[in-house]
Amino acid sequence: MKNSKLIKVLIEPDGMEIHVPAGMLLSKVVAASGRLVEAPCGGAGTCGKCRVIVSGEVSEPDSSERRALSAEDIQSGVRLACRIEVHGEIIVSIPETSRSMSQKILSQGLLRDCEVSSGVRKIHCSLPKPSLEDECAEFERIADFLSAQDIVVRPKLGLVRRLSRILKKSDYDVTAVLCDDELIAVEPGDTTSCCYGVAYDLGSTTIVGYLMDLLTGEELGVQAVMNPQVVHGDDLIVRIGFAGAHENGLLALQAGAVDAMNRIAELLIDGVQGSLENIYKVTVVGNTCMTHLLLGIDVASLGQSPYVPALCRDVQVSAEKLGLSFCPEACVTALPNIAGFVGSDTVGVMLSTKWEYDGRTRLAVDIGTNGEMALMHEGKTYVCSAAAGPAFEGAGISCGMRGAPGAIDSVSLGESVQITTINGLPPIGICGSGLVDAVAQMLDAGIIDETGRMLGLSDVGHLSQDLRSRLIETKSGLEFVIATKQESGNSRAVTITGADIRHLQLAKGSIHAAIQTLIKAAGASDTDLHEILLAGAFGNYIRVESAIRIGLIPAIEIQKVFSIGNAAGAGARLALLSEEEMDIARKLAGSAKHIELAVSPDYQMELMERMMFPEGCTKVS
Amino acid sequence: MKNSKLIKVLIEPDGMEIHVPAGMLLSKVVAASGRLVEAPCGGAGTCGKCRVIVSGEVSEPDSSERRALSAEDIQSGVRLACRIEVHGEIIVSIPETSRSMSQKILSQGLLRDCEVSSGVRKIHCSLPKPSLEDECAEFERIADFLSAQDIVVRPKLGLVRRLSRILKKSDYDVTAVLCDDELIAVEPGDTTSCCYGVAYDLGSTTIVGYLMDLLTGEELGVQAVMNPQVVHGDDLIVRIGFAGAHENGLLALQAGAVDAMNRIAELLIDGVQGSLENIYKVTVVGNTCMTHLLLGIDVASLGQSPYVPALCRDVQVSAEKLGLSFCPEACVTALPNIAGFVGSDTVGVMLSTKWEYDGRTRLAVDIGTNGEMALMHEGKTYVCSAAAGPAFEGAGISCGMRGAPGAIDSVSLGESVQITTINGLPPIGICGSGLVDAVAQMLDAGIIDETGRMLGLSDVGHLSQDLRSRLIETKSGLEFVIATKQESGNSRAVTITGADIRHLQLAKGSIHAAIQTLIKAAGASDTDLHEILLAGAFGNYIRVESAIRIGLIPAIEIQKVFSIGNAAGAGARLALLSEEEMDIARKLAGSAKHIELAVSPDYQMELMERMMFPEGCTKVS
Repeated sequence: MKNSKLIKVLIEPDGMEIHVPAGMLLSKVVAASGRLVEAPCGGAGTCGKCRVIVSGEVSEPDSSERRALSAEDIQSGVRLACRIEVHGEIIVSIPETSRSMSQKILSQGLLRDCEVSSGVRKIHCSLPKPSLEDECAEFERIADFLSAQDIVVRPKLGLVRRLSRILKKSDYDVTAVLCDDELIAVEPGDTTSCCYGVAYDLGSTTIVGYLMDLLTGEELGVQAVMNPQVVHGDDLIVRIGFAGAHENGLLALQAGAVDAMNRIAELLIDGVQGSLENIYKVTVVGNTCMTHLLLGIDVASLGQSPYVPALCRDVQVSAEKLGLSFCPEACVTALPNIAGFVGSDTVGVMLSTKWEYDGRTRLAVDIGTNGEMALMHEGKTYVCSAAAGPAFEGAGISCGMRGAPGAIDSVSLGESVQITTINGLPPIGICGSGLVDAVAQMLDAGIIDETGRMLGLSDVGHLSQDLRSRLIETKSGLEFVIATKQESGNSRAVTITGADIRHLQLAKGSIHAAIQTLIKAAGASDTDLHEILLAGAFGNYIRVESAIRIGLIPAIEIQKVFSIGNAAGAGARLALLSEEEMDIARKLAGSAKHIELAVSPDYQMELMERMMFPEGCTKVS
Repeated sequence: MKNSKLIKVLIEPDGMEIHVPAGMLLSKVVAASGRLVEAPCGGAGTCGKCRVIVSGEVSEPDSSERRALSAEDIQSGVRLACRIEVHGEIIVSIPETSRSMSQKILSQGLLRDCEVSSGVRKIHCSLPKPSLEDECAEFERIADFLSAQDIVVRPKLGLVRRLSRILKKSDYDVTAVLCDDELIAVEPGDTTSCCYGVAYDLGSTTIVGYLMDLLTGEELGVQAVMNPQVVHGDDLIVRIGFAGAHENGLLALQAGAVDAMNRIAELLIDGVQGSLENIYKVTVVGNTCMTHLLLGIDVASLGQSPYVPALCRDVQVSAEKLGLSFCPEACVTALPNIAGFVGSDTVGVMLSTKWEYDGRTRLAVDIGTNGEMALMHEGKTYVCSAAAGPAFEGAGISCGMRGAPGAIDSVSLGESVQITTINGLPPIGICGSGLVDAVAQMLDAGIIDETGRMLGLSDVGHLSQDLRSRLIETKSGLEFVIATKQESGNSRAVTITGADIRHLQLAKGSIHAAIQTLIKAAGASDTDLHEILLAGAFGNYIRVESAIRIGLIPAIEIQKVFSIGNAAGAGARLALLSEEEMDIARKLAGSAKHIELAVSPDYQMELMERMMFPEGCTKVS
């Protein structure tokens, strides 16, 4: 009986009130309020990233909270949102560090031109009205009108069901919407000028949507939201586990993605004062797991070796069937994938960079928890993915955090340490690009050697007084202080530890080893590389010099390395606007050769080697 | 609170127990138990056909019950099922006359041969299993296998969602099911020998289904059930009203049809010890309103002039989308309609009779509440429908009943009256074919004159003593006693009244006038008629001589008139088995010219004339 009562939860600092059933997990309450807390461990209670401050009636701390939090913390109300249940009226305060709302989101990518031929067109029709002399069926009225323009349409049941009402309401003055010469909608009045499509980049952390005019090809807006699936785990593997472990797990993950896509579209359509019903076409890129989840396809086989997807080629589904609140028959196309861990986002990157146009050797790398990369050499494309771990996203790093405001995103060492932070806020942690920068600088400064070992106090006599003072000895070993942050009125150090450096070595080593494996498979060498394209957020914010310095990517001339932003999203936009581009995407996906690193002896060898840092001769100004 | 309690209802004579919420309408309780009571008035309480005997706590008789039932009836527990609510535990007894379960159902029709090419085929596939060396996507495994046999398939999302599990379960030994070269199912193991389709004739009273082997063309079974929509009214117009008047009215009618189709399929599949999952293709014929209801298309415009359907051409929908529990992607095709009241059942009749093969002039008539007819003359087809009223189905006739056991179905007058009844049971009423017979005989015997007037006692001196004694004078005029029935221990007469004859004149007049209007529109005459085909149940059981005698159809030689049984269903079977036949059906529907009787001056003239009975010179032995 107690369960049926709704309980008031006040969420600070926003002061939002929400009423939830007793016994609900606090992380779900927070998610239900439209906020998200960090959950890299997927709610297992091990990462300790979802700290909140609670007052009121909640469940007792369990063993994982007792491990992750100090007795003092618990005393002062600090708890893990993923572990506690709401029992009575409570107030929750979510510290900035635990929120995953304010992450820096990369929406821009290069958008090259293409001829607009989306397959969607609208035709204004004044139809004859029924009478006893003209008892032609409603659908036939519109079919006959279109047939006079050499367009042969077949009835779609969903449309026919609604047709009578629309024709009567509009007094038989309507606009027909055609997609690939299929009649997908009939709208009252003349709506020929409103013809929208949305291209989505379905990232595991962030979902970005671009509103495009399907007639002019103009980009009308861009919006991004956090992927709500994050509440079920940061990591794809955690989400795959969630989908398998819960009866409606897959459904919940799918609903999360669809919900976010709907929210994005609402924001976009508000921006042009339009109507969601006028969205007729949708393209989606994302990694293979994300597109499977969106389409409601079982992902169990993606969670175990061999990582076989259910589907690689592109698939079409109606907006209605997927739960998108657009024109019901709007055609949603998930671009083709290449393999279990090389998804349509990689295809999007290739598509947007005119991958094959000049036959030159090029490498595209998108670095995240997984690094996906593609190499074009002598007319052939080779792709692979490497599990980099979450270090580049700040997870697993002692003071690591996502690229959110207050994250240290660049570091340079001179006499002292200069840092910049996102939005210029006081530092609260270090994000991936900051970490790469810091380690590159520490290598150059001689604080770390090529094996990744931090030098002892006795070996750093060459450093300035300030830098030396930042090298501190702790119980768990040496740490280097990058900055000082304020927390609950106390000063705390933001440091790089020996373990942090090991994590980074493993991450960058696996990426670079994968690159070398591709190069070897193609029979090429580093010197063949005409360009390296760094796609995605991390590739956008990273300092190329530092990436080369730590040996994340091959050491080619800096001017041959390009950050290309959200190139996957750009690919989705091209495929949205042009059927021809969509065909190119199909061909790119179909002809790419996937190299499975798990069975590649080359990769194992390379990994050993690339874990080391390169010799320190490449100090770049 | 009282509403939440379930109440026990015992239904006699079966002794079935059912538990229902308090306040439920008794007719719905009966329907929920799988039984149906007669409801020609659609539950308005005016026809008095749903009499039941009730003991226990029910609502008080309302004004319509007080009109329809005598105080004596009510005293002894007789009530109308459509008007009373269940308030407490009750026992209901449903007399045979009120049940509409045991109606004579016509399932057989001529089935001419056709070459079997249903478009469905099955291919047994032994697929390579995934490994680290073969990470091909699951769908691609099967697509590649089929592509080696020159079959190019596209992914259907519903199938892909289930694919991984099926492949793993079957260890990659599966059977692919293709429909028109689309992959619609993948099944574990070798199931190539099980390949079924069902052809449905969706009548407004009865739904018939035929199980066909899609590989051999063999008919494996036939089953029929009452159309559960009957609880919402016998008449299509009542059902259209119901769909418009209730929020979920359309949904309820659709669910009723789908449910009946599922039940039929279960019975059919049980008969071959097969599985519903092995049904891959479905065709449906029915009147335009019935197919609209099945497809969930708004029928409001079919209820008012001009009677414009939403759709005439054929439409495909998946079994899953329609709620049929077959192979989810099984293709369901509702054959094309011609007009608002000339449906795909008429197209089915034309298809099964090789309508155009010899170019001769032929007329097909399907008589029910609506008479639909088609005339082929000089290479052109003319169709129309005439509202005959329910007289041919026994409704509106004083002692009328459906063609159920105990119904008088043939009458002949000699010295006395000879009758036969359905199943040879004691007579309880007269059905349509019996009524036509009786009136034809009464015309020949000189009991009725050409205007339809029953002759007075003073004018029938030529009759035998027995026949004269059957002509009785009542408050409402003369009646002719056909038989005597036993009811509640009393003898009661089954009679033909003057009003009954008027009803029949109106009904047969409208049918024959429509036939003549078609003949005139085609520029033909009765003598051109090479044959008349009587389709449907009424056309099957009627005595042709009597039909001609009363002037229901043109007076051509008897040997040119054929009862062709359920020819609509036969058409559905042909369209199921052969794509070519389906194409012919499309052409027949597309080229037929619909004559709207409501605006035909010819029809009005003919109607006046055809209400009369023909001159009495055609006494046929």
